[in-house]
Amino acid sequence: MPNLPLYQELHDHILKYINSHEYPENGLLPSERDMCQMYKVSRSTVRQALALLEEEHMVYTIHGIGTFVKPKVFEQNLSQFYTFTDDLKNKNISFYSHVLSYEMLIPGRGLALKLRTDRKETYHKLVRLCSARDYPLVIETTYLPKNRFVHIDADTIEKQSLYDYLSSKYGLKVDRATETFVPILPDSEQCELLKISPRIPCILLERFSYEDDCLVEYTSSVVRGDKYVFKIELNNQK
Amino acid sequence: MPNLPLYQELHDHILKYINSHEYPENGLLPSERDMCQMYKVSRSTVRQALALLEEEHMVYTIHGIGTFVKPKVFEQNLSQFYTFTDDLKNKNISFYSHVLSYEMLIPGRGLALKLRTDRKETYHKLVRLCSARDYPLVIETTYLPKNRFVHIDADTIEKQSLYDYLSSKYGLKVDRATETFVPILPDSEQCELLKISPRIPCILLERFSYEDDCLVEYTSSVVRGDKYVFKIELNNQK
Repeated sequence: MPNLPLYQELHDHILKYINSHEYPENGLLPSERDMCQMYKVSRSTVRQALALLEEEHMVYTIHGIGTFVKPKVFEQNLSQFYTFTDDLKNKNISFYSHVLSYEMLIPGRGLALKLRTDRKETYHKLVRLCSARDYPLVIETTYLPKNRFVHIDADTIEKQSLYDYLSSKYGLKVDRATETFVPILPDSEQCELLKISPRIPCILLERFSYEDDCLVEYTSSVVRGDKYVFKIELNNQK
Repeated sequence: MPNLPLYQELHDHILKYINSHEYPENGLLPSERDMCQMYKVSRSTVRQALALLEEEHMVYTIHGIGTFVKPKVFEQNLSQFYTFTDDLKNKNISFYSHVLSYEMLIPGRGLALKLRTDRKETYHKLVRLCSARDYPLVIETTYLPKNRFVHIDADTIEKQSLYDYLSSKYGLKVDRATETFVPILPDSEQCELLKISPRIPCILLERFSYEDDCLVEYTSSVVRGDKYVFKIELNNQK
């Protein structure tokens, strides 16, 4: 076997520690100075090893603080209709959804514009925190028209997917949905719920679901950007 | 006509100024205190008006600094194969692409992993800054295999879309592409090129394009998050 350059040996060693969770996700790696002493190598060797890990998206650096282990991510395929719950269930990832609040309301002006409603209709507003494995992933704020869904049982929704609930109780059949994606910086409340620093950008995902051309759901989700990758397959039919 | 509440009058007044560009995109609005004096209204009226504008996504607030006019955005539909150039061209938006650098290289380890190559192949690396109207939108870093495209003329690429160039010169026909989306905070070089503050999150968009199951293009794009909304239509075929 050829002798590896020193920095690659160090790289492989750190990688082993990351993969075995000895260095946990989002955990701070030892400082450059400490690594020099621990491994009896030069500062430039440490820097080369860390640069390579960063190139491989295994670590990230926060200026003036240090280098952290980059968390593993979930991949969400956008090529077909999906729900976070179903998708994670299919991947055998334990998933739960916690209802943070539930109320009925008549939309204010901004929300009414989104819902294209005349501000006389009542909506259910449901805020949920969805977590997979040990960590929170998504804050979902859902609006459902009361004239389509008379009563929403928040307790039941904690136990099954919202679509499953609405389809079994109200025969909901979503034909199509529109989603938009925008990157945002989370506010302090979102940071606290998602347990992330304010410097972790998130995706603001807005979904409008239709049944027979009627809007039956509007959900605004804040999705952790360090945990989710959205993926799409494009076919060129030119 | 019914009398509007004071805060709605103020809201409409500010909105008129935003739409007429008197308050320009990303421009700082007068402070709450100044608005109280200008319009002879209470602080709480100003706050209600601003809160409504924020709800409507017309303004955004940076804590401790003030309220800014939110810039208009481009919508990119992901439901079919697209290129930024073609899409903006179709919308009659003037668009140009400036080549920042061009070189040939053999990929390092991290890049070779992405390209699934054995580190013996040579690639063209092309970095471009794409702008629409008056402002920069996207930094695109493209890698193209030399064994498929012998020579790349950087000057010509400034004048036409990359796909048009490759298809006319090399008969390229992309069958399909895979894209992933992750939110990132831009680094200082990206901020300077895109003319944004480091607090404006962007989308890191990675595209892998295939022709007869061979990877013929890898592009890593940093897309301004304050200017672009990605949109997708989902059909439910359950």
